[in-house]
Amino acid sequence: MGQQRTPPPRGFSPAEFEQRTARAQAIMRDHELDALLLTTPPNIRYITGFASQFWESPTRPWFVVVPADGKPVAVVPEIGAPEMAATWLDDVRSWPAPRPEDDGTSLLAEALAQLPRTFGRVGAELGREMALRMPVAQLDELRDALPGLEIMNGSPAIWRIRGVKTPAEIEHIRFICQIASDAYETLPSYVHPGDTPREACRRLTMDVLARGADSVPFMPGIAGAGGVDQIVCGPNDRVMEEGDILFIDTGSFYDGYFCDFDRNYAVGDVSAAARRANAAVWDATEAGLAAARPGATVEDVWRVMAKLLEDAGSIGNNVGRMGHGLGMQLTEPPSNMPGDTTVIEPGMVLTIEPGMEYAPGKMIVHEENAVITEDGAELLTARAPREFWTID
Amino acid sequence: MGQQRTPPPRGFSPAEFEQRTARAQAIMRDHELDALLLTTPPNIRYITGFASQFWESPTRPWFVVVPADGKPVAVVPEIGAPEMAATWLDDVRSWPAPRPEDDGTSLLAEALAQLPRTFGRVGAELGREMALRMPVAQLDELRDALPGLEIMNGSPAIWRIRGVKTPAEIEHIRFICQIASDAYETLPSYVHPGDTPREACRRLTMDVLARGADSVPFMPGIAGAGGVDQIVCGPNDRVMEEGDILFIDTGSFYDGYFCDFDRNYAVGDVSAAARRANAAVWDATEAGLAAARPGATVEDVWRVMAKLLEDAGSIGNNVGRMGHGLGMQLTEPPSNMPGDTTVIEPGMVLTIEPGMEYAPGKMIVHEENAVITEDGAELLTARAPREFWTID
Repeated sequence: MGQQRTPPPRGFSPAEFEQRTARAQAIMRDHELDALLLTTPPNIRYITGFASQFWESPTRPWFVVVPADGKPVAVVPEIGAPEMAATWLDDVRSWPAPRPEDDGTSLLAEALAQLPRTFGRVGAELGREMALRMPVAQLDELRDALPGLEIMNGSPAIWRIRGVKTPAEIEHIRFICQIASDAYETLPSYVHPGDTPREACRRLTMDVLARGADSVPFMPGIAGAGGVDQIVCGPNDRVMEEGDILFIDTGSFYDGYFCDFDRNYAVGDVSAAARRANAAVWDATEAGLAAARPGATVEDVWRVMAKLLEDAGSIGNNVGRMGHGLGMQLTEPPSNMPGDTTVIEPGMVLTIEPGMEYAPGKMIVHEENAVITEDGAELLTARAPREFWTID
Repeated sequence: MGQQRTPPPRGFSPAEFEQRTARAQAIMRDHELDALLLTTPPNIRYITGFASQFWESPTRPWFVVVPADGKPVAVVPEIGAPEMAATWLDDVRSWPAPRPEDDGTSLLAEALAQLPRTFGRVGAELGREMALRMPVAQLDELRDALPGLEIMNGSPAIWRIRGVKTPAEIEHIRFICQIASDAYETLPSYVHPGDTPREACRRLTMDVLARGADSVPFMPGIAGAGGVDQIVCGPNDRVMEEGDILFIDTGSFYDGYFCDFDRNYAVGDVSAAARRANAAVWDATEAGLAAARPGATVEDVWRVMAKLLEDAGSIGNNVGRMGHGLGMQLTEPPSNMPGDTTVIEPGMVLTIEPGMEYAPGKMIVHEENAVITEDGAELLTARAPREFWTID
C-alpha cells in the first residue's frame, strides 16, 4: 500500500473560524452587505465547522446567517441542532422539521430582521457556480417576509472569501492530494489488460479510503483506444486492451476538502501519436505551473498552455478551460480560460489542467494541483511522470 | 464476505424511458404545464438515463426540457455532450461552457420558446425537497428572456412522477438494500470494543463497495452510552466501550438508486432500559410495516408507530417524522408524519423509521425499506432482529 501519510488534525480551531468570519465580514463591507445568508454544505461548513453527510437528504433546508459583526447565527432543523450547538457558534435556533407550512422561513426571517441595517442588503448564494440549497419558492416567501431588505447575489463576495485558503485548509488539501497520488501510483500493480475501468475505479476507491480519505465523490475512469472522447462520465465497462489509454480523474475528500487531479495509463504499447500528445500535455502542465505566480492572471496561465498545445497539433477539447480553483468543492472559481482576469494571489489553490484532442475522439488531459506561494506554484500532488505509466 | 448477490442490469431500456416520459407528460397535463425544466442530477437521470459524477462540480448548469409531447431535449455543456448524445434522446444542444456571460441561458430560452404553448406555464424545480441546480440569478435572466411564459413551481408534479417506481427501479433499490443488509450483518465479525465508529464505517463502506455498490454517500456511525443523541452527524471518534450502542445508518447507492436504513449494535452488555426501548422500536417497525398498505395514508403509518412508542415511554425524538419516500434520493416525499395525507399506492418505496428517546440524550432509531404492493409492504431490507446484534 506504500507510504503511510499522517493526516492533519480534523476540524479547525475556534481561532481559525474567528479569522474566517472576520475576513468574511471585511469582504461583506466591501460588497455593502449587512449579512450573508448561507444554505449550502460547503459554505455552512466553511464558517461554522459543522459537517454532515445528512445534507444528502433534500428534505430540510439549513441556514446560517453571517452578520456584519459578531458570530454567525444558525437556523437549523431540530435533527441537526445538537451537533450545531457543539460548534463555535453560540446562537443556534431550530424548528421541528419537516414542517411544510413553515420550514424555518419565519425563524430565519426573524433572525434577518433583527440585524442592524447599514446597507439594507443581504448576500445570498444566487450567483455563478452556486446552487441555493433551499426551495426557490421559499426564497420568495422569505423576501415577502422582509420588506425593505434586499436579498441579492452574494456569490461574488462568498467566492472572494473562500478563494484564499488558510494554512490549515492547505494542509487538508495537501493530505488528500498526497494519498490520492500514492494510490494512483500503486494502481498498475493490480490493474491489467482485460480489466474494466469500473473494476479499476472500485479498487482504487477502496485504496484511497484505506489510505485515509473520507469519501470519493468523483472518480470517473474512462478507457479508449489512444485517448478518450470525454472525461466526465464513468467509470465505464470497456474491457481494456493493448493500445488503450486509461484515464482516471478523482475528487477524493478528506475532512471537507477535495483534491482534483487525473492520471493516464497506457495499456501495453500505445501509439507514438498518443505518446507524443501525452508528452506535449505534460510540457504544457509544466508551463502552466511556471506561469501560475502571484500577480499573473489565470488567463495568462491558460494562454501559455494553449499556445504549447496548439503548436503540438491540438484540434481542441470539450473541457472549456484548463484548470480552476479547488478547495471545499471539486471545482471553484476562477477558471483558467480566456476572459477570466482573476489575479493570482498567495493562498489560492489551483488545478493546472491542459488537454488536447490530437485526433478526433482522442483526448489526453492532464491535471495537477498546486498552492500559490509568494514564490510561485507549489505542487500538492506528486508530479506525474512525462511518460505514461503502463498497465500490463 | 457472505452471499454474493446478482446486480440488476445497469441502466434502463429505451422503452422504460418512453414510459417514464409518457407518465410525466400525463401528470404535466394534469398540472397544466407545457413543459418541465429539469436541472438536478436525479431528475435529469430519471428522464434521460444520463449519469455523471461530474455534477459534483458546481461550475456548469445542465438543463433538460420535457415537452408536452415527444422526447425530452437536452441543453448541456459541451463537456457532457458526447455522453448525453448516447442516451435515448435525439435532440442534444450544447454550448462551450463555462461561458460566464451566457452559460446556456440563450440556448435554453430558445428551446423553451420553441415549444407549443397550451397553458403558458413551465414547471421548474422550485418547490419543497428540491434545490434548483442553476444560479437563481440565471433563472431571473431566463424569465426575462421569456416574456409570456410563466416558470413556476413544478416540484409537486415532479414528485408525483417519481413517487411511483417502475419494476426495474424497484429491482435496483432491492439490490442495494440486499447488499447493505448483508454488510450490516457481517460487521460484528470485524468491529470490537475499543474501535471507533469512524473505523467501523470505513470498513463497512469498503465491504459495501466490494459487494457491488457504486458509492456510499451517506453513512454516519454514532456511538453513545445506551443510545445516541443525534443520528445525522458522523462518523465520530468515540472509543466504543461496554454499554454503548453503535448506530449506523446508510444511504448506499447502486446505478442511481439509494437504500436508506440503519442498524443498532450493542457493545457488550447494555442496560435493560436500552434493550426494552430497542424491542419497543422494533415492535413499532412491525406495526408500521403492517399499516403501510394501499389506501392508507402515511399519516396513518405514523400514527400506529407513534402510539406504540408513546405507550413504551418515549419522551420524543428530534427526527420529526417516522420514515419517508426513497428512490433516486436518500429521502423523497412523502413523510410519515402528522399532516401528510399522501395516500399509499402500489409501487411506492417507503422507509419505516420509528425512533424514541427513552431517556434524555438516549435515542434508539430503527429503519427498514419496503416497496408497496397490492398486498401491503414487502420488505426490501433483511429485517433486523428484535434483539441487538452484539459487538464483543
